[in-house]
Amino acid sequence: MSTVYTGNKEYFPGIGKIGYEGPASDNPLSFKFYDENKIVAGKSMKEHLRFAVAYWHTMTATGADPFGAGTIEREWNSNSDPLAAAEEKADAAFEFISKLGAPYYCFHDVDAAPDADSVSDYESNVAAVGDMLLQRQKATGIKLLWNTANLFSHPRYMNGAATNPDFRVLARGAAQIKAMLDLNVKLGGENYVFWGGREGYTQLFNTDMKRELEHMARFLEIARDYGRRIGFTGTFLIEPKPMEPSKHQYDSDAAAVIGFLKTYGLDGDFKLNIEGNHATLAGKSFAHDLQVAADAGLLGSIDANRGDPQNGWDTDQFPTDVYDAVSAMLVVLGNSGLHTGGLNFDAHIRRNSTDLEDLFHAHIGGMDSFALALEIAQTIMDRGLVKRYRDARYENFNSGTGARFEKGELTLEELRNIAAENKDIPRISGKQELIENLINQIMFSR
Amino acid sequence: MSTVYTGNKEYFPGIGKIGYEGPASDNPLSFKFYDENKIVAGKSMKEHLRFAVAYWHTMTATGADPFGAGTIEREWNSNSDPLAAAEEKADAAFEFISKLGAPYYCFHDVDAAPDADSVSDYESNVAAVGDMLLQRQKATGIKLLWNTANLFSHPRYMNGAATNPDFRVLARGAAQIKAMLDLNVKLGGENYVFWGGREGYTQLFNTDMKRELEHMARFLEIARDYGRRIGFTGTFLIEPKPMEPSKHQYDSDAAAVIGFLKTYGLDGDFKLNIEGNHATLAGKSFAHDLQVAADAGLLGSIDANRGDPQNGWDTDQFPTDVYDAVSAMLVVLGNSGLHTGGLNFDAHIRRNSTDLEDLFHAHIGGMDSFALALEIAQTIMDRGLVKRYRDARYENFNSGTGARFEKGELTLEELRNIAAENKDIPRISGKQELIENLINQIMFSR
Amino acid sequence: MSTVYTGNKEYFPGIGKIGYEGPASDNPLSFKFYDENKIVAGKSMKEHLRFAVAYWHTMTATGADPFGAGTIEREWNSNSDPLAAAEEKADAAFEFISKLGAPYYCFHDVDAAPDADSVSDYESNVAAVGDMLLQRQKATGIKLLWNTANLFSHPRYMNGAATNPDFRVLARGAAQIKAMLDLNVKLGGENYVFWGGREGYTQLFNTDMKRELEHMARFLEIARDYGRRIGFTGTFLIEPKPMEPSKHQYDSDAAAVIGFLKTYGLDGDFKLNIEGNHATLAGKSFAHDLQVAADAGLLGSIDANRGDPQNGWDTDQFPTDVYDAVSAMLVVLGNSGLHTGGLNFDAHIRRNSTDLEDLFHAHIGGMDSFALALEIAQTIMDRGLVKRYRDARYENFNSGTGARFEKGELTLEELRNIAAENKDIPRISGKQELIENLINQIMFSR
Amino acid sequence: MSTVYTGNKEYFPGIGKIGYEGPASDNPLSFKFYDENKIVAGKSMKEHLRFAVAYWHTMTATGADPFGAGTIEREWNSNSDPLAAAEEKADAAFEFISKLGAPYYCFHDVDAAPDADSVSDYESNVAAVGDMLLQRQKATGIKLLWNTANLFSHPRYMNGAATNPDFRVLARGAAQIKAMLDLNVKLGGENYVFWGGREGYTQLFNTDMKRELEHMARFLEIARDYGRRIGFTGTFLIEPKPMEPSKHQYDSDAAAVIGFLKTYGLDGDFKLNIEGNHATLAGKSFAHDLQVAADAGLLGSIDANRGDPQNGWDTDQFPTDVYDAVSAMLVVLGNSGLHTGGLNFDAHIRRNSTDLEDLFHAHIGGMDSFALALEIAQTIMDRGLVKRYRDARYENFNSGTGARFEKGELTLEELRNIAAENKDIPRISGKQELIENLINQIMFSR
Ligand SMILES: [Co+2]
Ligand SMILES: [Co+2]
Ligand SMILES: [Co+2]
Ligand SMILES: [Co+2]
Ligand SMILES: [Co+2]
Ligand SMILES: [Co+2]
Ligand SMILES: [Co+2]
Ligand SMILES: [Co+2]
Repeated sequence: MSTVYTGNKEYFPGIGKIGYEGPASDNPLSFKFYDENKIVAGKSMKEHLRFAVAYWHTMTATGADPFGAGTIEREWNSNSDPLAAAEEKADAAFEFISKLGAPYYCFHDVDAAPDADSVSDYESNVAAVGDMLLQRQKATGIKLLWNTANLFSHPRYMNGAATNPDFRVLARGAAQIKAMLDLNVKLGGENYVFWGGREGYTQLFNTDMKRELEHMARFLEIARDYGRRIGFTGTFLIEPKPMEPSKHQYDSDAAAVIGFLKTYGLDGDFKLNIEGNHATLAGKSFAHDLQVAADAGLLGSIDANRGDPQNGWDTDQFPTDVYDAVSAMLVVLGNSGLHTGGLNFDAHIRRNSTDLEDLFHAHIGGMDSFALALEIAQTIMDRGLVKRYRDARYENFNSGTGARFEKGELTLEELRNIAAENKDIPRISGKQELIENLINQIMFSR
Repeated sequence: MSTVYTGNKEYFPGIGKIGYEGPASDNPLSFKFYDENKIVAGKSMKEHLRFAVAYWHTMTATGADPFGAGTIEREWNSNSDPLAAAEEKADAAFEFISKLGAPYYCFHDVDAAPDADSVSDYESNVAAVGDMLLQRQKATGIKLLWNTANLFSHPRYMNGAATNPDFRVLARGAAQIKAMLDLNVKLGGENYVFWGGREGYTQLFNTDMKRELEHMARFLEIARDYGRRIGFTGTFLIEPKPMEPSKHQYDSDAAAVIGFLKTYGLDGDFKLNIEGNHATLAGKSFAHDLQVAADAGLLGSIDANRGDPQNGWDTDQFPTDVYDAVSAMLVVLGNSGLHTGGLNFDAHIRRNSTDLEDLFHAHIGGMDSFALALEIAQTIMDRGLVKRYRDARYENFNSGTGARFEKGELTLEELRNIAAENKDIPRISGKQELIENLINQIMFSR
Repeated sequence: MSTVYTGNKEYFPGIGKIGYEGPASDNPLSFKFYDENKIVAGKSMKEHLRFAVAYWHTMTATGADPFGAGTIEREWNSNSDPLAAAEEKADAAFEFISKLGAPYYCFHDVDAAPDADSVSDYESNVAAVGDMLLQRQKATGIKLLWNTANLFSHPRYMNGAATNPDFRVLARGAAQIKAMLDLNVKLGGENYVFWGGREGYTQLFNTDMKRELEHMARFLEIARDYGRRIGFTGTFLIEPKPMEPSKHQYDSDAAAVIGFLKTYGLDGDFKLNIEGNHATLAGKSFAHDLQVAADAGLLGSIDANRGDPQNGWDTDQFPTDVYDAVSAMLVVLGNSGLHTGGLNFDAHIRRNSTDLEDLFHAHIGGMDSFALALEIAQTIMDRGLVKRYRDARYENFNSGTGARFEKGELTLEELRNIAAENKDIPRISGKQELIENLINQIMFSR
Repeated sequence: MSTVYTGNKEYFPGIGKIGYEGPASDNPLSFKFYDENKIVAGKSMKEHLRFAVAYWHTMTATGADPFGAGTIEREWNSNSDPLAAAEEKADAAFEFISKLGAPYYCFHDVDAAPDADSVSDYESNVAAVGDMLLQRQKATGIKLLWNTANLFSHPRYMNGAATNPDFRVLARGAAQIKAMLDLNVKLGGENYVFWGGREGYTQLFNTDMKRELEHMARFLEIARDYGRRIGFTGTFLIEPKPMEPSKHQYDSDAAAVIGFLKTYGLDGDFKLNIEGNHATLAGKSFAHDLQVAADAGLLGSIDANRGDPQNGWDTDQFPTDVYDAVSAMLVVLGNSGLHTGGLNFDAHIRRNSTDLEDLFHAHIGGMDSFALALEIAQTIMDRGLVKRYRDARYENFNSGTGARFEKGELTLEELRNIAAENKDIPRISGKQELIENLINQIMFSR
C-alpha cells in the first residue's frame, strides 16, 4: 500500500501520497502526528489504529441535508451508466484511500453498487461491483473492514426491515443481507455490520414492540447461520443508536444491545460497533459506551466521529477532539486492541466544505487526532497514574471479607455484622480533579 | 379506610376526607374524576390504580434545592426528640393519607425513622418506628406498597453503596437493607425497591465499571436470598434512572436494567419500578419504558410523576398531563394491571407551594389525572381502535411464510427467494396522524 | 369558500368538503371540534383561528429524510413540464384547502414556482405562477397569509443569504426577496416572512458574527424599504429558530430576535412568527416564546406544530397536544387575537403516512386541537380563575410604595428603609398545582 | 502577593505557595503551565488572566446536593459564633488565595458574613466582615474582582427578588444590594454582579412576565443610580443563565440580556458576566456567548467553569477542557483583554473530592488550563491562520458594491440587478476541517 492507486483517470490531481511530516510542517496535506510505521508499545500506529474510510460519506455524500440539495458534485459520480459510474467511484475510492494511506474501507451495498428493484438485478449489480472491488483490493492491499446492507434508505424500508410489520419487506431485506454476506466472504471482510436505521418506531401506539424485537432476533439468527454456513469467520457487529431517523431505535445504546444479545443468545457471534455521536445522542459519553462494550467482552469495532454538543442530531463530524480520542484509546488499549475491528471514519465533511481537498483535510485531522490519542493513552498507561488511583480505590475487595463478598461467601446478616463493627468509615476522595490535571499534563507536555 | 385517622393532634385542620364531587364541583379539595368505587372494566378505580403516597416527598420535603434552604416548615417535623418527631410524622402521614383516601404508602428508612451512626442504634430506631407504622396501618387499613433503604443521602455513600469501592460502605448499606427487609415483612409490604442513587460514577477514569456492576449483582443476590429466607414473598423492584445525582447511573433505563438482570440471572425475582421523569431523562417516553418492562414480563410498579421537558433534571412534578397518563394506563391495562405494584407519587410540590393545602391539591391532581386516564385508556381498548390499526399491520406474520419465519423455519436463502417473487410491495401507511386524532376524540368527548 | 374547488383533474377523489360532525362522529374525515361558524366570545372559530395550509409541506413534501429518499409520490408533481406541473400543484393545493376549509395558505417561492438559475427566468416563472395563484384565490376566496423566499435550499446559500460572506450570494437572495414582495402585493398577502435557515454559522472560528449580523440588519432594512415603497402594508415577520440546519442560527429565539430588532431599529415594521417546535428546540416552551413576543407587542403570527420531546431536531409534527394549544391560545386571546397573523400548519405528515387521505387526517387533527384549545382557553378566561390567582400575586404593586416603585419614584435607600420596617414577610404560595388542576378540570369536563 | 498569608491558625498545613514547576514536574501541587510572570504578547500571564477565587464554592461548599447532605467539613466553618466563624473563614480564604497566587476573589454577602432577619443586624454583620476583608486585602494585596448579594437562597426569595410579585421581598433584596454596593466601594471592587437565580418563573400561568421584567429593569436602574452616587466606578455585570433553579430565568443567555439592556437603556452601565456552563445549558457554546457579548461591546467578565455534556444541570466543574479555554481566550484576546473583568472560578470540587488538598488541585487545573489556552490562543493569533481564513471569506464586502451595501447605499432593486449580472457564483469552502486541524496542530506541538 505504499504506492498510490489510480484508475483510468486521476480524481485527486495534484495530491500525492499523504506523508508524515511532523508537527512543525506547514503543509496541510501532511500528517503531523500519524506516522504509520512508528512503534508504540510494540505495534505500529497502523496496526493499532486500523483506520477505515467510509465509502458512503467519502465517495457518495453530496452535502444535502433536510433543508437543501447537495452542494458537492464529484466527477466520479457523473457517469450516467450505473455500472460505469460504480467503476469510476471504485477508482476514485481506491485512489483516495491509497493516497491517504488508510489500510481499510467499509461500504453499504448501495454505496458501491447500483440498486435495483428486482432481486436478481440487484444481485448481478452487486456481483459485478464485487469483482471491481476485489481487483482493486488486490492492486492496493487495501482490505475490507466491514460491509453492510442499507436497509433504511429505500422507501420500502420506511417502517424498518427486520422489524417491518410487513413480512415481504423483511424478506427483501434478507435478500440484501444474503448478497452482502456472500460478497463479504468473497472480499475477505473481517466484520459484518448491522445498523438498525429504521428498526424502531415513529409512534408507540401503532407498534408491537415485543413482536418486532422477536423478529429482529430471528432475523439476525438466520443471517448469522447463513454467514457461518458460507464460511464467514469474522465478527458480526451491531451498531447502537438511540434515535434518528426513527423516534426510537431499538439498538439504542451499548447496554440495550448487550441486553438484547443476551436475551436472544446472540452474544456468541455478535459484538458492538460503537459510534461516538451515537453514544452522545444516547446521553452517554463515547468512552462510556466503549467501556460498557469492552466490559462485556463485546467491543467489536468503532465508528470514529463526534457530534456537536449543542445540536441534537447526528452531525457525524470528523473526530478531532483529542480528549474524546484519548478516552476512547484508553478503552481500546485496555481491551488489548481492536482485534478484528478498526477505526472507521463514519463522518462527513460539512455541507460548505466544497473543495475537493477538504476530504483529505478531514481524514488527516481524524487520523492525526487518534495518533495523538494513541500516544497519550499509552503514556498514561505506562506511567500507571490513572490506573494507580483507580485500583487503589478497590483495594479492600482484594482480600479478607471484601474478597469473600466478591466470591459470594457472605450473607446479608454477615455483611450487617461487619458493618456493626466498622464504627468510623473514612471518606476517601475520588481525586477527580487531580486525575484531570494529570491527563492534561501528559496531553500538553509531549 | 373510609374513616379519617388523626393522632394526638390534627395536622391538617379544616380539611376532611377528600370526596368525589365530580367535574362540576367548585371545591378544589374534592376529586373531579377519581371516584374510588367506580367500576371500570370489572374493577374499582381504587383496585386498578393502587395509589401510594411517598413519605419522603410528602412528609419530609422542605422545598430546599441546590440554590436555597427549605421554604416549607411542617409542624410534625418540629419536635426536637427524634423518636417523638417520628411518631408525629407518622400521625401526620396517616392523617394525610386517610384524608386523601390513598390505599398505600411507601418510605425509605430515614424518611420514617431517625438515622444513627451505629448499626444497632439505627436498628432500634427502625424497630421502634416500625411498631408505630404497624399500629397505624392496622388503625387505618392503609398498606405498605414498598419500602427501601436510603443508600445515597448519607455522606458515607458519596461513592455509592453496592458499588462503593470501599467494602466497608457496602457492608453498611447491607445493614440498612437487612433492617428494611425485616421491617417489610413485619409490615406486610408488597414490594421492596432498590433505587441506585449513587450506584454509578462521577468520573469514568477513576471507576472500574465492570467490577462495580459485579458487586451490584452480588449485593442484590445476597439481599434477595435474605429476603426470601425471612419470608418476603413480594416483588423486588429496581428503579431505573440515567443520571443525577451521579453523572451516570448504572440502572440507566428499562433496557439497561433488563439486560443487567438477565446477565446476572436476577430476572426471576426482580422487576422494574418505572418512574416517568426518569424515563424522560433517559431520552425515552414514560410509556416507552413501561412497555419495555411489560414486554419483558418485568413491569413491577410505577413512580407516577413527570418532568419539565425544558429542564434537564428530575423535577419530580405531580403527573397532571393526561396524555402521558393515558399512554401509561394503556400499558398497564395491556399488562392485565399492576399486580403487586401500584402508582406511587414520587413527586413533590414546588418550592413555592407553601400552603399546607397544596399537598392535597398536588395529590388530588395526580389522582384525578390517572382516573381520567384509566377511563380513557379503557375506552380506547373497548373501542379497539388503536389495537385494530396496530394488529392489522402485522397480519402477514400470522400465517404462511410470515408465520414460518416467526417459528424459525426459514433460511436466509428462502427469505431471499420469497423476496425475489414479491415484485411490488405496496407502502402501507402507519396511520399515525389518524391514531392521534382518535385518541384526542376519545379524550375530549367524554 | 363554502364550495369545493377542483381544477382540470380531481386530486383527492372520494373526499369532499370536510364538515363539522361533532365529537360523536365515527367519520375520521370530519371535524369533531372545529365548527368554523361557531361563535366563541363574539367571533367565529374561523375568525379566531385563521388557519393556513403550508404549501411546502402539504403540496411538495415527499417524506424524504437524511437517511432515505421520499416515500410519497403525488400525482400533481409528476408532470415533466415545470410550469404545467406548477399549475397542477396549484390546482391540487386549492382543491385541498377548499375541501379542508382553511381560509389561508402560505408558500415559499420555490414551493409554488419553478426555480431557475438566471434571475430573469426565475422572475418570469414567479410571475406566471403568481397569475395562477391569483386566479385560484379569486375562485375560492382563499387568501394569502404570507409568502417568503427560500434562501436556504439552493447550494448557493450553503453559507447563508443575508449573512453569506459572499456579497454576490446576498444579492441573489435579494432578487428573490424582491420578486416575492412584488408577488405578495399582487396577491394581497397579509404578512411577509423571513426565516433564517442558514443565517447563522456552522463554525464560529471562520465566522465574523458581528459583521454578519450587521449585514442581516441592513438586508432587512433594504427589503422593508422596498416593500413599503411598493405598497406592502402588512406585517414583516421574523421566525426564530435556534439551530438546524446551521449549528447556530442568529434568530435563535423570541428574546434574541426582539433584541436584534431593537438594536437595529426594526421593531416598527417587523414582528415575530413563533413556531412551536422552534421554541422547544431553543429550550423554551411554545407558550413562553409566544408570551415573550406578545409582551413586546411583537406577536405577529404562529407556525402551529410540535416536536418530539425525545428528539433533538425539528420534527414539525402536527399540533395535536391540546395542552400546548391551550397555552398558546391563552396568549393569543390575551393579545386580543392574531391580528394580521394566523395559525399556519408548518407541519408535515410522517414519512410512513403514505395514504393520500393522511394529509387530511393531519390537518383535521391540528384544526380540531386548536378549536378545542380556543374554547378551553376562552372558558379559562371567562371563569377568570387563572387570571385571578395571577393578578392577586402582584397586588401590592398596585398602590402605595409598590406603585411608587413602578413609577421610578423610589431610591435604593428608600427601598432599604421599607425593608427595615417589614419585619416578617409571609411566604405566599404560587398555587401551581391548584392552577394545573383547574385547567385539567376545564379541559376534561366540557 | 508573593508571600503567603496565615491568620491565627494555618488551615492548609503542609501546603505552601504553589509555584510554577513546569510540565515535567511530578509535584501535583505545582503549576505545570501557569507561570504568573511569564510575558505573553507584552503582558504577564497574571495580568492577562486575572484569576479570581469564588468564596461561595471554595470556602463554603459542603458537597451537598439534592440527594444528600454535605460530605465536606471545613475547620474554618466549625466555630459556633457567627462572626468568629466569619473571621476564621476569611483567614482561611486569604491563606488559600495567597498560597494559590490568585490576584482576585469574589463573594456574595452571605458567603462571607452571617445573614440576619433584620436589615440592621444584617448590615452590621456585613460591616464587621467588611472590615475583616479589607484588612486582609491590605495584608495580601489580593483584590476584589466583584461581590454580589445572594437574593435566591433565603426562603423569602422563593419567588424571586427584583421580580418577586411581593413588593416587600423586592425591597428586602434592595437592602442587601445597597449594603453590597456600599461594601464594594469600601473594598475597591472592580465590578458588581447580578445573577438572577430566581428571577424567572416556575409556572407561566401564574406569572405576569411583562410586569416582572419591568420591575427587574427598574430595580437595576435604581441600584445603578445608587452605585454611581456613592462612587462606584466599576462595571455592573449581569450573569445569564437559562434555567435552574427556576424553570425559566429571564437572563437566559447573552442575546436575551443584551436585548433587555437595550430595551431598558441600561447598556451604558451594565455588561455581561458569561459563565461557561450557563451558556451550554442555554444551548450555546461558551465561546458563542462570549463572542455575542464582545460583539456588542458588553463582555464584562467570565465565570470560568464547565458542565458535563451529558448532564442537564449546572455541574459547575473546574474548566479543564483546553479546547473550550482556547476558544474563550480567542474571544478575550480579540476583545483586547478582560478590562475590569477577570476569570472567576465559579466552580466547585466534586462531592467526593473530600481531601483538603483537592481544593488546590481543582484551582491549579483551572489555572493551568487557561494559561495553556492563553499561549495557544496567542499563537493562533500570531500566526494569523484562523483570522486569515475568516477574513478572506468577507473580502468582497471591503470594496465595490459590497462596501456600498454595508453603507446602506443600495436598494433592493439595485441588489436584484447585481444578482442578474452575476451568472455563476462559485461555491467557496468554509474550510472548517482544515481550521480544526490547524488548531490541533498548534495545541499539540507546543
Ligand atoms: Co456509524
Ligand atoms: Co452517525
Ligand atoms: Co422514583
Ligand atoms: Co425522580
Ligand atoms: Co416555521
Ligand atoms: Co420547523
Ligand atoms: Co456564575
Ligand atoms: Co453555574
